[in-house]
Amino acid sequence: MGIFLKDILAVVPNGTKNVIEKRNIYIQGDIIASVEEEPEGFQTDKIINGEDRLVIPGLINAHTHSYMSLFRNVADDLSFSDWLFGTIDPLEGKLLPEDAYWGAQLSILEMMRGGTTCFSDMQMHINQTTRAAAETGMRAVISRGLIGTGSDQAGSSRLAEAFEEMSNYKKNDMITFMLGPHAPYTCDNEYLQIVVDEAKKHQLGIHIHLSESKTEIENMRKGHNCTPIEFAYKAGVFDVPTVAAHCVFATEKDMDIMKENEVSVVTNPASNMKLGNGFAPIPYMMEKGLNICLGTDGAASNNSLNLFHELNLLTLIHKGAGETAQCISAQDGFKIATENGARALGMGNIIGKIKEGMKADLAILNLNSPSLAPRNNLVAGLCYSANGSEVETVIINGKITMENRKMLTMDEERIYMEVGRICRRLGLDKKTY
Amino acid sequence: MGIFLKDILAVVPNGTKNVIEKRNIYIQGDIIASVEEEPEGFQTDKIINGEDRLVIPGLINAHTHSYMSLFRNVADDLSFSDWLFGTIDPLEGKLLPEDAYWGAQLSILEMMRGGTTCFSDMQMHINQTTRAAAETGMRAVISRGLIGTGSDQAGSSRLAEAFEEMSNYKKNDMITFMLGPHAPYTCDNEYLQIVVDEAKKHQLGIHIHLSESKTEIENMRKGHNCTPIEFAYKAGVFDVPTVAAHCVFATEKDMDIMKENEVSVVTNPASNMKLGNGFAPIPYMMEKGLNICLGTDGAASNNSLNLFHELNLLTLIHKGAGETAQCISAQDGFKIATENGARALGMGNIIGKIKEGMKADLAILNLNSPSLAPRNNLVAGLCYSANGSEVETVIINGKITMENRKMLTMDEERIYMEVGRICRRLGLDKKTY
Repeated sequence: MGIFLKDILAVVPNGTKNVIEKRNIYIQGDIIASVEEEPEGFQTDKIINGEDRLVIPGLINAHTHSYMSLFRNVADDLSFSDWLFGTIDPLEGKLLPEDAYWGAQLSILEMMRGGTTCFSDMQMHINQTTRAAAETGMRAVISRGLIGTGSDQAGSSRLAEAFEEMSNYKKNDMITFMLGPHAPYTCDNEYLQIVVDEAKKHQLGIHIHLSESKTEIENMRKGHNCTPIEFAYKAGVFDVPTVAAHCVFATEKDMDIMKENEVSVVTNPASNMKLGNGFAPIPYMMEKGLNICLGTDGAASNNSLNLFHELNLLTLIHKGAGETAQCISAQDGFKIATENGARALGMGNIIGKIKEGMKADLAILNLNSPSLAPRNNLVAGLCYSANGSEVETVIINGKITMENRKMLTMDEERIYMEVGRICRRLGLDKKTY
Repeated sequence: MGIFLKDILAVVPNGTKNVIEKRNIYIQGDIIASVEEEPEGFQTDKIINGEDRLVIPGLINAHTHSYMSLFRNVADDLSFSDWLFGTIDPLEGKLLPEDAYWGAQLSILEMMRGGTTCFSDMQMHINQTTRAAAETGMRAVISRGLIGTGSDQAGSSRLAEAFEEMSNYKKNDMITFMLGPHAPYTCDNEYLQIVVDEAKKHQLGIHIHLSESKTEIENMRKGHNCTPIEFAYKAGVFDVPTVAAHCVFATEKDMDIMKENEVSVVTNPASNMKLGNGFAPIPYMMEKGLNICLGTDGAASNNSLNLFHELNLLTLIHKGAGETAQCISAQDGFKIATENGARALGMGNIIGKIKEGMKADLAILNLNSPSLAPRNNLVAGLCYSANGSEVETVIINGKITMENRKMLTMDEERIYMEVGRICRRLGLDKKTY
């Protein structure tokens, strides 16, 4: 299919910056065939009029747990330990595989409506997420959450599940995989090493939680006299391309280790605040040259999967915490939410920018929105004033998945019905009414 | 006109909490006539079906500068002084009165679409804001920004303008007034005293900026050996009902003075972060029993006027800054964005709650929105996951101003055209393209 975005303002790379330029964009199949002249032999199947519209590379949510949207707003104002072990873990125990499917559908719905075109998910029922992603046309990077010890059977069967699902999706390049050892406090050293060996053997990246809470740091210090990042490093995790979520309490040494080993850090500002963990030292990591990308974490600790919301937090909170207005500019933030995420997920050459030859993963915003008026400085607008509801049309891998706010690959009404049903079965709707 | 909201989930007060209950709500003229039984003699002119809908009291934006939406995204990543004196002040000098009218229209559009039904504005061209508010049916509290010394002519002519505009709106109870001495760094002691005397004589409240930036604190310490809050107190400002914006650097003594004098504090989290001022000690002020309300500040330093966005920041950032999940709960946040704002603006008995006898200022949200699904705990949802785009219908003073996202009292297209024109005249659209 050939889609022609005619005379449209676009966020395009110019040196190290992103700038706004009026362009003609030609999409052929799954590829951005040209951002200027009509390519030879281009067949136009659809024209999108660019008047009053802005096209951006789709945003990349580099860390979430898609089933958790079922638990949105159920476990608020709890410390990290009470939240995880007291509320979320018991709820997870009650989940049926089918529940995770509807949770993933709801998460994909929220992400897509907010201009996200690719997400990296860590969870248990991965076959349900892959199914939801494949059906909805969302680009996804899936990690089976791995918890275990070197000697227990559960750990190896979880790994086996991961590989089984990979074999099912070998021919679908929209669904890729990483291995997801949950965290150093849920995986012992031996198990981490097993996972790393498998990752090396199958050329897979690793997706892991590191240094998220103070309790985690204290326990690791007591038990192993090191930081969680040092523990992962010593277990060989960083020998393979790693995306480390959170790193709120990363020390200077931790950052140097991660930089040295080209670990990408995915920051989750809302979740880190909501659970009382604080602010990750992102501006300092940026100075060190670490690749920073952005995630929402799960909706149980955010409680939204809207990446525009997250981008706004990212570009505001460090100015507050550092008492300086000159920190994580809109230019920085936009890169973090797009190309840096692509790089972290091993897709730096195929998504994250509007550029000839890259995959057509795009979000088109309606500029006739109060939040983007007047059109003073739209890169700043994307970070500081947009809320995601300006996104009108979404194209993923060259296919239109949302058009004029209408979902083309999802049955929105059915999703609300199903998640409501699950919520009632779990007893969650008794929280307030 | 009689409007009947049939079988609708509503946020209603229950003791010190807000709860979600299914209600029948009857609006007669400008008043909520009943929240249960049909009142005797009620004439139904319109029925709104409550299925899959949630009605909340309209949000109250207790501090903004409506013309500043013209400067949205033009002065980013600048320190407070560079922002105010280097960029915003020169731009303000170029503004024509008509520009302020279109700025106010744009601001009201953004606020109304995000469920805000009342705002408190400080600005220069107040006759343009009053005009925009009156035309659009928005409830407004207007303060002429007052800058001056006891001896200069400019100060008194600004005061005269304020009183002239008040006399024009004597018969319109949707538009009320406060006096707006800008700040202790722009008003000398003598001028503050003149303003206070006028406020006492005319029974007006005062709207003022206090302790917003470190520079302000340092200069006040050097010049007068006190804090800006102490300076205002000594000038007699707190003798009249006062709403103090920001108070980021309030000391313990400052807070005690404000509590003693029943000063309301309006916190503006986005603006305080964006200008590098930091986090106001709101949780501590709440412990002291101060009345805290919420504002967006102007769009030049936020850069949005979406109060859902601000409510989300309010309920997240202090958890981050204090490294505790138990601080400013959703219950606290929702009150701060509604009834506390009403109280600060002297309207605690007429707006801010869904209650029999109060003015019908309401926002109706569509619950078939991914951000509010599943319907686990909707008070939390309003703070942690809503983004404002769920607001579908807005009723102010018993009149429907937005219905199914369509503006009934504003010409949206015209607003975008006019602010674009003004923006080009000011040369603002050269920022990126």
